[in-house]
Amino acid sequence: MEVMIGLGAACLLIRLGLLLYRCGQIRAKNAAGSVLRVVGDFCVATLAFWAVGAALMMQTRHSFLGIDSSLIAFRSGGSADLFFLITLILTGTGIAGGAVAERSRFFPLWAVSILLAAIVIPIGGQWAWFGWLAHLGFIDIGGAAWLHLSGAVCACVAAFVVGPRTGKYHTDGSSSMIPGHNIPYVGVGAMAMLVGWVPYLAGCLILLHYDMASIGSAAISTLIAGAAGGLAAILLAHYRYGKPDVIITLLGFLGGLVAISAGAGRLATPWAVVIGGIAGLIVPMSAIFLDIICRIDDPIGVIAIHGIGGLWGTIAAGLFATGDVTHRLRQLGVQILGIVAIAILSFAFSAALFAVLKLTVRLRVSEAEEFEGLDLAQLDIGAYPDFQQNTIKSYHLREA
Amino acid sequence: MEVMIGLGAACLLIRLGLLLYRCGQIRAKNAAGSVLRVVGDFCVATLAFWAVGAALMMQTRHSFLGIDSSLIAFRSGGSADLFFLITLILTGTGIAGGAVAERSRFFPLWAVSILLAAIVIPIGGQWAWFGWLAHLGFIDIGGAAWLHLSGAVCACVAAFVVGPRTGKYHTDGSSSMIPGHNIPYVGVGAMAMLVGWVPYLAGCLILLHYDMASIGSAAISTLIAGAAGGLAAILLAHYRYGKPDVIITLLGFLGGLVAISAGAGRLATPWAVVIGGIAGLIVPMSAIFLDIICRIDDPIGVIAIHGIGGLWGTIAAGLFATGDVTHRLRQLGVQILGIVAIAILSFAFSAALFAVLKLTVRLRVSEAEEFEGLDLAQLDIGAYPDFQQNTIKSYHLREA
Amino acid sequence: MEVMIGLGAACLLIRLGLLLYRCGQIRAKNAAGSVLRVVGDFCVATLAFWAVGAALMMQTRHSFLGIDSSLIAFRSGGSADLFFLITLILTGTGIAGGAVAERSRFFPLWAVSILLAAIVIPIGGQWAWFGWLAHLGFIDIGGAAWLHLSGAVCACVAAFVVGPRTGKYHTDGSSSMIPGHNIPYVGVGAMAMLVGWVPYLAGCLILLHYDMASIGSAAISTLIAGAAGGLAAILLAHYRYGKPDVIITLLGFLGGLVAISAGAGRLATPWAVVIGGIAGLIVPMSAIFLDIICRIDDPIGVIAIHGIGGLWGTIAAGLFATGDVTHRLRQLGVQILGIVAIAILSFAFSAALFAVLKLTVRLRVSEAEEFEGLDLAQLDIGAYPDFQQNTIKSYHLREA
Repeated sequence: MEVMIGLGAACLLIRLGLLLYRCGQIRAKNAAGSVLRVVGDFCVATLAFWAVGAALMMQTRHSFLGIDSSLIAFRSGGSADLFFLITLILTGTGIAGGAVAERSRFFPLWAVSILLAAIVIPIGGQWAWFGWLAHLGFIDIGGAAWLHLSGAVCACVAAFVVGPRTGKYHTDGSSSMIPGHNIPYVGVGAMAMLVGWVPYLAGCLILLHYDMASIGSAAISTLIAGAAGGLAAILLAHYRYGKPDVIITLLGFLGGLVAISAGAGRLATPWAVVIGGIAGLIVPMSAIFLDIICRIDDPIGVIAIHGIGGLWGTIAAGLFATGDVTHRLRQLGVQILGIVAIAILSFAFSAALFAVLKLTVRLRVSEAEEFEGLDLAQLDIGAYPDFQQNTIKSYHLREA
Repeated sequence: MEVMIGLGAACLLIRLGLLLYRCGQIRAKNAAGSVLRVVGDFCVATLAFWAVGAALMMQTRHSFLGIDSSLIAFRSGGSADLFFLITLILTGTGIAGGAVAERSRFFPLWAVSILLAAIVIPIGGQWAWFGWLAHLGFIDIGGAAWLHLSGAVCACVAAFVVGPRTGKYHTDGSSSMIPGHNIPYVGVGAMAMLVGWVPYLAGCLILLHYDMASIGSAAISTLIAGAAGGLAAILLAHYRYGKPDVIITLLGFLGGLVAISAGAGRLATPWAVVIGGIAGLIVPMSAIFLDIICRIDDPIGVIAIHGIGGLWGTIAAGLFATGDVTHRLRQLGVQILGIVAIAILSFAFSAALFAVLKLTVRLRVSEAEEFEGLDLAQLDIGAYPDFQQNTIKSYHLREA
Repeated sequence: MEVMIGLGAACLLIRLGLLLYRCGQIRAKNAAGSVLRVVGDFCVATLAFWAVGAALMMQTRHSFLGIDSSLIAFRSGGSADLFFLITLILTGTGIAGGAVAERSRFFPLWAVSILLAAIVIPIGGQWAWFGWLAHLGFIDIGGAAWLHLSGAVCACVAAFVVGPRTGKYHTDGSSSMIPGHNIPYVGVGAMAMLVGWVPYLAGCLILLHYDMASIGSAAISTLIAGAAGGLAAILLAHYRYGKPDVIITLLGFLGGLVAISAGAGRLATPWAVVIGGIAGLIVPMSAIFLDIICRIDDPIGVIAIHGIGGLWGTIAAGLFATGDVTHRLRQLGVQILGIVAIAILSFAFSAALFAVLKLTVRLRVSEAEEFEGLDLAQLDIGAYPDFQQNTIKSYHLREA
């Protein structure tokens, strides 16, 4: 159908939004490299999914693992559905790169893009859409678990192995907040993701043969969940810190979008308020918890948005399913089983990959390069050569 | 229909454009707050329209005021049409916030978002689409009056009650031009609105059961009116001030888009040149008149774009209607009646709301906060912490 | 069909992307003017194509040159197809302006917009889609030759006549690299073009009555070619210069998109890897060659992207056509004939226009205005008044 072309193209706006959202939250000295990384991940992930991923994901013969050789490099020809599928997978492959921004080297991250696009997301997606999880009744239409949580688990492994940015955490137990260099980029990036999110979920529902009423309901639920998430986060910041906060608001807003992705189209719109609203509270709180307590340095908050948002959304899709209590409890069990299976899948592959990377290549730039900024140190380019910039040395001097 | 999902998603690009258009026209010290306000308005307006607005707007039993209880919180289920409708209403709720940028407090504006999304725009829309104005033959397909003019009247009340920015007007009768901080944001914001405008009008025509020829014609008219508006404004600035001007050009361009919204699909494309071209002259001139003569401080020019653009467009839809002179004069009378009714509706509610707000809460920040910038004073964040900024003190010292 | 409305609207994202891509690659002192030029070209080109261009392009009676008077100013009424066509033509008219950025005067460029939108692109498009080239079997679905190469030839003439920016080339044979002021704009502009590119090619295929399988295949090929182009360019820069480079990457990426435009929908997706990958090598190398060896100063690299990318794509559409060797060789001959014919068409009109312009008006700003920046010198506005900027005087002092 022609409409899948339009929906897939709109879905690419999520990547455009990701570029801006990520770029705005890091320091100006790393902005050009951030752009290159998002473009690089697009290139590598697109080719990896085309070459192998689609054949793993769209096979329907084996419920656990199999390959449809006619789909390797799309040998049997392309279609609008396969085009949409690429844009869908690209929504997930960019997650991990954000968590290791500002200190990781460029090329090793390509291994992560390939792993996610060619193996982890396709296998998880196959389980959830056609395989053993689908047979159990697992509900994850838009990939809250198999796309977002999967990417977030990988991001968490990456951030842990690569370690925090220099100057982020201090020996006295305190940590520095390192502000992003361009808040409007962050806001417009989140808005661009919203524009792409409705077509992304609508396309998933069409691929899974839902009817038009479900698709309309999913589209409304997406807006409602984002709105409720943003609203809850504004109020959270207002009551907790005495002022609304842009970043916390957008964490809640995007958390709401991720959370609704599991059950959109199967839940009445009032549940979208609940799902989005709760995501708007737990995603920002998780981000702060991961940052300050767990000391996992995730400059963009992707682990909280996609991990906690995806986790909550997948559970909620079972919790608010139609049916009596017995059926709901059974559904909840299936959802938890699916979450555990997908998290283990992603963790196992990610941990293995990073173990190999850690042993074979240098994963992060030198401290001098980090201090100078990756743009000048590695790309020999400044993102904003015409503007006078501040160098906030305190991040480094805090320990002195 | 699936196409309404795509059109609605594209319509959300108008909000993305609004964010950039508004953010670019204010000073850097208020940029982060500007982003938060556009996101906050999205959250509040979406939920308000979902909860109440749709039930007021889409009821067809009463021609003046009624409520379709099955649509409260979309109890009867969602649909692609209702999704589109939310995105349509969001086009109008963001107008008022722009007119009070850089000096108003954050939370009181939520009352405006709720008023517009839940009451004023739905009632006006119901009149124009299904109610007593529709019965009289009122033409306002895309809401030049019930969406844009309505929002602009509210914006005008807001700007008047809140008062001008400190340092804007001087006791000697002169006024300062306070330049926006990022012209490319303004330009790309206007372009994003153009991208969303065609789907927005096409969706309205589909909802009102127009045929494909009308929709195609409307899409072309939108481009033509925007182009004619921009062109007229470039020439206006060139002959009036000796140089083309970016902001004046975009005022004319957006004025053309608003003006075509009333009659698009019912007018031949040559009329789009006339409607857009005249909008491209009167919208910038009105903006300057409002600023310098009326001393209403509207940093973004939204009152002129949506108010004067919407006014002219609604009149033009009658003026250039098909039929003989008698029929046209009658149509013109209906259009003026509709404008007056909708303006009174919006004015009455807005004035009442701001009277209450004025008595109960503080509407604007302190002068010290305004001088420091709302970002640092209220959000404790800088939008661009890595860049060295100029503080143009003359806006304040002008009176000294 | 409603879908053409959505595809055309999405196609306008290419213009939004162009605005950002161009603006980011020039210096901050010329950024506001750059925005105005892209908007101005939109206004003029839209009206010129509506008035005359469509009547030249969509006529099917004459195979070389003719006019369908019912399409002059769309007298026979609009349609979704004609709307799409405007957005398609706008993809090409903006090319030439980029090549003369930072030193050309504002109004003379309108003649170029009119020439391209009203005459050159429509005539070339008519040849390729319906006229004598189509009768020979010429393959150029998305206008790699008649849209992109055509625009690039005009851009090359423009850049040659206007001459390089002051301080770009030096008497000792060396040249300065003048860095753009905002790399994230460049990246997000390229991404926005990607989002619009798939709908742009899909719309062309629909207009030419291709089936859905071809459209799906074209959409996939577009992503693949862009990805392969970007990947090849990253590796090129890494092996040639020892580091990946953002601008070279985006040259390759966009070159891949342009190159796939000729044959998308008629070639199997593996060929998209080859076409995109080769474009990703030759487009950046051509850009450097044009810059350093030919000393044609094209700040945005549009001549390489659209010219070399379009040239290669048109040849590749013949080279990889289905059929036996004889048929392919014949097809290759037709492709080369088409390229030559379209290049001559564009060159003849462009050279004539610039000869007249050179004799009658001043084409470039004074050296003092160029040094001060076109924004302050010509528009009396700064694009970023709140930020402290560097003035890199060395571009001018190099000769001293």
